[in-house]
Amino acid sequence: MARIVMKFGGTSVADIDRIRNVARHVKREVDAGNEVAVVVSAMAGKTNELVSWTREASAMHDAREYDAVVASGEQVTAGLLAICLQGMGVHARSWQGWQIPIRTDNSHGAARIVDIDGSFLIERFGEGQVAVIAGFQGIGPDNRIATLGRGGSDTSAVAIAAAVKADRCDIYTDVDGVYTTDPRVEPKAKRLSKISFEEMLEMASLGAKVLQVRSVELAMVHKVRTFVRSSFTDPNAPGMDDPINPPGTLICDEEEIVEQQVVTGIAFAKDEAQISLRRVADRPGVSAAIFGPLAEERINVDMIVQNVSEDGTKTDMTFTVPSGDLEKAVKALEKVKGEVGCDAVQSESGLAKISVIGIGMRSHAGVAATAFRALAEKGINIRAITTSEIKISILIDGPYAELAVRTLHGVYGLDK
Amino acid sequence: MARIVMKFGGTSVADIDRIRNVARHVKREVDAGNEVAVVVSAMAGKTNELVSWTREASAMHDAREYDAVVASGEQVTAGLLAICLQGMGVHARSWQGWQIPIRTDNSHGAARIVDIDGSFLIERFGEGQVAVIAGFQGIGPDNRIATLGRGGSDTSAVAIAAAVKADRCDIYTDVDGVYTTDPRVEPKAKRLSKISFEEMLEMASLGAKVLQVRSVELAMVHKVRTFVRSSFTDPNAPGMDDPINPPGTLICDEEEIVEQQVVTGIAFAKDEAQISLRRVADRPGVSAAIFGPLAEERINVDMIVQNVSEDGTKTDMTFTVPSGDLEKAVKALEKVKGEVGCDAVQSESGLAKISVIGIGMRSHAGVAATAFRALAEKGINIRAITTSEIKISILIDGPYAELAVRTLHGVYGLDK
Repeated sequence: MARIVMKFGGTSVADIDRIRNVARHVKREVDAGNEVAVVVSAMAGKTNELVSWTREASAMHDAREYDAVVASGEQVTAGLLAICLQGMGVHARSWQGWQIPIRTDNSHGAARIVDIDGSFLIERFGEGQVAVIAGFQGIGPDNRIATLGRGGSDTSAVAIAAAVKADRCDIYTDVDGVYTTDPRVEPKAKRLSKISFEEMLEMASLGAKVLQVRSVELAMVHKVRTFVRSSFTDPNAPGMDDPINPPGTLICDEEEIVEQQVVTGIAFAKDEAQISLRRVADRPGVSAAIFGPLAEERINVDMIVQNVSEDGTKTDMTFTVPSGDLEKAVKALEKVKGEVGCDAVQSESGLAKISVIGIGMRSHAGVAATAFRALAEKGINIRAITTSEIKISILIDGPYAELAVRTLHGVYGLDK
Repeated sequence: MARIVMKFGGTSVADIDRIRNVARHVKREVDAGNEVAVVVSAMAGKTNELVSWTREASAMHDAREYDAVVASGEQVTAGLLAICLQGMGVHARSWQGWQIPIRTDNSHGAARIVDIDGSFLIERFGEGQVAVIAGFQGIGPDNRIATLGRGGSDTSAVAIAAAVKADRCDIYTDVDGVYTTDPRVEPKAKRLSKISFEEMLEMASLGAKVLQVRSVELAMVHKVRTFVRSSFTDPNAPGMDDPINPPGTLICDEEEIVEQQVVTGIAFAKDEAQISLRRVADRPGVSAAIFGPLAEERINVDMIVQNVSEDGTKTDMTFTVPSGDLEKAVKALEKVKGEVGCDAVQSESGLAKISVIGIGMRSHAGVAATAFRALAEKGINIRAITTSEIKISILIDGPYAELAVRTLHGVYGLDK
């Protein structure tokens, strides 16, 4: 017997038939003797509809009212799933954020969970009751509904798993796990059976849109074993209730991964743009003068490269931003050009960032060299490089992105 | 300055444009210096959609889950109206039943309001804040959302008006008041400027579907002056904020009605059916044996007529039921025929019940005689008669319903 939190996203609960299919997944776990809490999103499309109504009502709206409107989507799904479960003879009830309660801070519209009282839920587990919980929502210190921002249901699920000390948090989604890279780019990509929290964090923030970054951070902090799996498989197919090795990817502590690979996956982000500031005055405070205005415009800056200058007075500064933010970024930088004292703001878009990710890099030398050699052999020019303990990111010209991904995927033996 | 509760039904808040129109009505009252609480229904069609989903999820569903799902409709409207009001510069916030709180009993799906704590709302009135309240819902003793049953928003509004000691409860609807009879039957029908609670109760329960019967009962008990008016008029037309005589009908204590009419209105119900039990044993307990089974089937029995029997051993018993319930009623009665000891169960459908209503009847003789004479002159046969202190109900053949309504409307001078 285990205690499991199961999370289902919007496409998995898009209509009553699909909600009924979700109920079958839940029943399977209950029948296997597990204690189960389920976290649900709004039915696909509902959140967008509610959000568009709030915009239509007034361009500038009170985030607390937005929350009251938008949180209703998850409330509906939770009630409907509880009804479906009861119809199948499963003892279940719905919970809204304010009923548990899931306490958040006061940042309505993008609130953070502060505390979850798991005592009610645990009490009901003891009575054999399944908790069906509206995701994406909690209650703020003002006693009003607060939503966690887009994708917040993943975060709800992991936070609830931590609060009730669940053995596992199963994230059911429209893919059957986390892959070594995007299978649409490299058909030889393999599903990972396990990945460490740190690696997943890099994969998630680099565009492998399986899980919200915040939920992975939370899972890492609270060591919540998180299992990514598909909701569209037959709920009662053989092996689905196998606690050891059902189809999916387990995100867990690195200690739990026995056969550690040097490289776990290749992530990539297309539509990157590069900005170079030539001959910037090399003095304290100059970085703040450059990146402060970009932060104010909420532009996400990545891959910052600064070279030591020859004479110690001038330096070149290069960094990347998403292509969509390029124009805004250049405009902001032109304003501070004088203050920064640089000759020119140069920019180029249509680039791609390829990242090689693996916790094994920490203890293996030569991982970066292998990548550089492989790309050179294909004639792919490297524009910039940044590295962290478990990641090497390489900036290249956009048209080479797919070739680079396939090359690196092969050179590290990820297709084996 | 007055304290006003304003209530808007589903057709008045069917889309954002209409919600914005409602906001203009609210702003008008705020600008006139009034303290305002607004009670809203779900957007037209939303409740039906939510109800159908719960049915689709499971034929037999937990009423507590039904409530969680269905109450979301009012939650959305309340948030959207608050946003529209804020967009017009009106200080407003939404309230859900559990936030106020509106405490109900535990009869989920058709709960009754037990207690409303008006202190929060009154505090906010002092700060100049408009309360936008989700109608139709409260919180049960189990700390879960409870809905009041169909049309419950009228009841919410009147109960809130009582709790905050409002000067008036304005029910905005798709008609501009209560008429002496249905204008579709008698074009000469006049809008009443005032009607007593007791009279309105008779009108409401007899098919003048302007207000829910429960809300009128509640208004009568708490002496809440209730004003029925149209939400589709121009919110800023002249006279709309006239506290003395805006267009609409005031439902109030009879003492407030200076020029009391003998007859206030003619109500009618078509599609009535008559059931007669011939030669029923005239002994104690026989009525219970007849009407008990009908109550169990939730059949609404009306106009019970029992004649004293000639020899004191047998009697004829006649009563009416809605035509739609006739078959079910006859089936239930056939089962107890032996026990009741009657010769035959006879029935006839396609009848109509016409009711003459007026508080002035109490002190005026001859009101019934006038009706009988007028109908006789038109050749309309009277099948049964029942009377109360303020009402005379007459059962006739269905095809004569409209003629009877117009005849009685004229004979009591209601078209003057």
